[in-house]
Amino acid sequence: MSGKRLIYLPLGGAGEIGMNCYVYGYGAPGEERLIVVDLGVTFPDMETSPGVDLIFPDVSWLKERRDRIEAIFVTHAHEDHVGAVAHFWEDLGAPVYARAFTANIARRKFDERGLGPEIVKTQEPWPETQTAGPFEVGFVPISHSIPESSGLVIDTPMGRLVHTGDFKIDATPVVGEPFDTATWEEIGREGVTALVCDSTNVFSDHEGRSEATVGPEIEKLLLDAKGMVVATTFASNVARLKTLAEAGERAGRSIVLMGRAMRRMVEAATETGVLDRFPATVPVEDAADVPRENLMLIVTGSQGERRAASAQLARGKHFGMELKEGDLFLFSSKTIPGNEKGVIRIMNQLSEKGVDVIDDSSGRYHVSGHANRPDLIAMHKLVDPKLVVPMHGEHRHLRMHARLAQENGRRGALAVNGTMIDLTTGKPCDYVETGRTYLDGSVMVGALDGVVRDRIRMALNGHVTVTLVLDEEDQPLGEPWCDTMGLTETGRSQQPLEAALEEELAQFVDRAKPKVLADDDALEEGLRRAVRNAAQNEMGKKPEVTVVISRLS
Amino acid sequence: MSGKRLIYLPLGGAGEIGMNCYVYGYGAPGEERLIVVDLGVTFPDMETSPGVDLIFPDVSWLKERRDRIEAIFVTHAHEDHVGAVAHFWEDLGAPVYARAFTANIARRKFDERGLGPEIVKTQEPWPETQTAGPFEVGFVPISHSIPESSGLVIDTPMGRLVHTGDFKIDATPVVGEPFDTATWEEIGREGVTALVCDSTNVFSDHEGRSEATVGPEIEKLLLDAKGMVVATTFASNVARLKTLAEAGERAGRSIVLMGRAMRRMVEAATETGVLDRFPATVPVEDAADVPRENLMLIVTGSQGERRAASAQLARGKHFGMELKEGDLFLFSSKTIPGNEKGVIRIMNQLSEKGVDVIDDSSGRYHVSGHANRPDLIAMHKLVDPKLVVPMHGEHRHLRMHARLAQENGRRGALAVNGTMIDLTTGKPCDYVETGRTYLDGSVMVGALDGVVRDRIRMALNGHVTVTLVLDEEDQPLGEPWCDTMGLTETGRSQQPLEAALEEELAQFVDRAKPKVLADDDALEEGLRRAVRNAAQNEMGKKPEVTVVISRLS
Repeated sequence: MSGKRLIYLPLGGAGEIGMNCYVYGYGAPGEERLIVVDLGVTFPDMETSPGVDLIFPDVSWLKERRDRIEAIFVTHAHEDHVGAVAHFWEDLGAPVYARAFTANIARRKFDERGLGPEIVKTQEPWPETQTAGPFEVGFVPISHSIPESSGLVIDTPMGRLVHTGDFKIDATPVVGEPFDTATWEEIGREGVTALVCDSTNVFSDHEGRSEATVGPEIEKLLLDAKGMVVATTFASNVARLKTLAEAGERAGRSIVLMGRAMRRMVEAATETGVLDRFPATVPVEDAADVPRENLMLIVTGSQGERRAASAQLARGKHFGMELKEGDLFLFSSKTIPGNEKGVIRIMNQLSEKGVDVIDDSSGRYHVSGHANRPDLIAMHKLVDPKLVVPMHGEHRHLRMHARLAQENGRRGALAVNGTMIDLTTGKPCDYVETGRTYLDGSVMVGALDGVVRDRIRMALNGHVTVTLVLDEEDQPLGEPWCDTMGLTETGRSQQPLEAALEEELAQFVDRAKPKVLADDDALEEGLRRAVRNAAQNEMGKKPEVTVVISRLS
Repeated sequence: MSGKRLIYLPLGGAGEIGMNCYVYGYGAPGEERLIVVDLGVTFPDMETSPGVDLIFPDVSWLKERRDRIEAIFVTHAHEDHVGAVAHFWEDLGAPVYARAFTANIARRKFDERGLGPEIVKTQEPWPETQTAGPFEVGFVPISHSIPESSGLVIDTPMGRLVHTGDFKIDATPVVGEPFDTATWEEIGREGVTALVCDSTNVFSDHEGRSEATVGPEIEKLLLDAKGMVVATTFASNVARLKTLAEAGERAGRSIVLMGRAMRRMVEAATETGVLDRFPATVPVEDAADVPRENLMLIVTGSQGERRAASAQLARGKHFGMELKEGDLFLFSSKTIPGNEKGVIRIMNQLSEKGVDVIDDSSGRYHVSGHANRPDLIAMHKLVDPKLVVPMHGEHRHLRMHARLAQENGRRGALAVNGTMIDLTTGKPCDYVETGRTYLDGSVMVGALDGVVRDRIRMALNGHVTVTLVLDEEDQPLGEPWCDTMGLTETGRSQQPLEAALEEELAQFVDRAKPKVLADDDALEEGLRRAVRNAAQNEMGKKPEVTVVISRLS
């Protein structure tokens, strides 16, 4: 083993919540054989990425080392772990391993991109393992909020690694296998070089609550409800879907699933046999036939997404269903930071309809799928690694988690995206350029390409097109022309803004020297400056400008 | 009094938190004499109002009735109550009344707009009153988080009205007068027609905590701190500024105020004598001379504002000060919905510097300035009105507050912006068109004018300018030209996007009939459609388009 090393390199998920992508390598420096754990997405927002459809990690580093990638392992079927696996597959070209349910979801993604389902291999859980170059990888069932979530045991020539994936410690998780303390203890007993561990909930200082505590609370709510009940949660939180549907069934209500993503999740879970007993549902088309006081709709859109079922129901009729005075709407979910305004918009629209809204503020109708601080400490103890490497979290989560390990007498290594760690020393051994790639419509755009920056600038400042036609002797034919978009119609001078700007531009052209009129760059720059200054005078802001100079020839 | 009525009309603040503007009127229908209570602003966001500087209520209704406005009363000096008073004054033209501190802040706003300070009259507190047409208005001191906050007692020919303004029930508010139960009881004893009451915190179901409980907790934190301490809160939360500064002083630290808004608030409070004992501060220029472990900076930017002191300090050096490992940063504030991402960005930047961050999640370092549910019930009891009209809140707050009144055996009226209420019946008697006006640079733009909508569209879809020059016979001179902004450089065909679009446009022009080439509208529409379809093919989205047709004549 002399001269070889065991490395860890996060390309996504270490410095944010979402977009998980972790690389492990073993070999001589620069020649390591690699495996990839998870390949997920994150979601755009208006403030930083308007118009963008999806955000991926930048995997250029992996693409350039394509021949060294042995395999891709996907821990579970949440979008921030599986969402990018089909998008990048042609660039990476390695087999994808996952347990049956995760594989089912992944295959749907390959299928959507016209790629064959055989790329995704179903792997049985631990103690079965898969050899991938120098790695021996097993999926150990772990409790989370979606079926077949798994931590990975990665045996290497330099010892055992444990990668938790997303997890919580839950003995009664409703869906998926209970957290199995004995198994994790046994895995730890053989000695663990490093534990790479979920950090999402490190700031929650109480012990996590079990999914099984949610159902009885929701049932009570339902028994008191007089009208129709609508509940929303993440489509991919299959455990909660079951919790909600079973509570509804116990309360004597007919269950309707509304929203494509939700139906697809339940379908995949049923196909793969991981949802053993999901209550019978009424097709959405038949829902109107059921008396509303006997109905429970379980709908997508817990984050206030404008096109999801919850937003549609808040605005008006959706699939013939309409909410009214006395109905109840339950957010069985946490609002992800940044989504507050969208969620509040829905709450107010529901309030206008006279619908009562219940959210998670009481703590009774939602529990998290991630391990809280005491549970992280428990996991560290169980696995008893030489090194704790916090993953899946913003910088503050990773730092707090590393500190938590240290406070409990362990070594902790803080590695954000792009920091390569030598897992035997816990020290950084390289830094790699990382970033984000945007799916924008149907094309990929680098986050730093300036495309989205220009869009943000137009949103802030508006846009002016300036056109000027010149003849063969560089003499203006007519005056410069302005077309504005996203700007006031009338400026400070009370005349139409475009006319006011054109006046200033005409003066600039009148005064322009022949040398400037003959030089596209100088003329463009002059027109740009003139229109921006004129706009500043007229309305106190400088718009983005497109100058088009047409020369007759 | 026959044929006369007593009305209430919210134009802002009833349907949102912020932008308060309430109208009271008395007289024959359509001829009521009016007073305005508060004239505030709210703040823009990237999602709904990119590039906008400030948001005002639409006061067209008031402008059209300018001759009927007797006076404007401002309850306190927070921006969402006083921020628009100078902007609209020339349209409304009535005298402005406020207590000394509020008047000081208001006069600065008039001064900035070149208006005379004499417009703002200082009014002494209750039992003094001011006659305004049929109204007799007194400022009753009430506890909130800024000096001289007041509720209004408005005596009318149809009985007494109480308008609480923003308030909490706090016997030890640190700054401003304690809540005086006896006075409010006495005011209620004479019979109150309607209580128009703050609704902001109706969803908080525990009794409100006093500002005085915060200082000792912060002092403990400071005594444990080893490095520099930075604390942030709202600049206008003068009570908290004093709480923070006094805790710092007790912990033996030198206090530095950083941020113009904060220094201005303390200056106004000192000028008007309402800050009796504010600890001595060190000018920001001298802060670097104080050993960092003896320093406490109190800074603006608790909401993550990019240009405020807290964001500057999180990014790097600011006024020669730089945060480092072992320093402490305290958010003594609540994050307003919509600002989470900005606040979290700062937390992570601080984490990268090794700075420990404490926020309000423990409940120890921040208390609200608004009355919680039990305190609202207490206020209803004290004033004992015939009618409760919830104000200052989103729809869900107003609805819950009206219901709270009803549950306690009172009449509650739900009136959102634009709903005119007859205060003797509690019933709506008219509906008025309301909305928002944007300050965009230096011009005012209606929220529904389409200006901001176009900017949002450019942010989502990007922009293309298409230009075409035609000769005197309507024959194209050269081919159509494309300039894109905010779009990918290379589309699906792997050639430059602009070239790909121009190819399609050239084909369209080649095929265009002479009738189309001669008709500006038809030609523009054809070019627009051609470029949008071509873009959809190339990159899966349809951009906003400006078409410029130049005809030689």
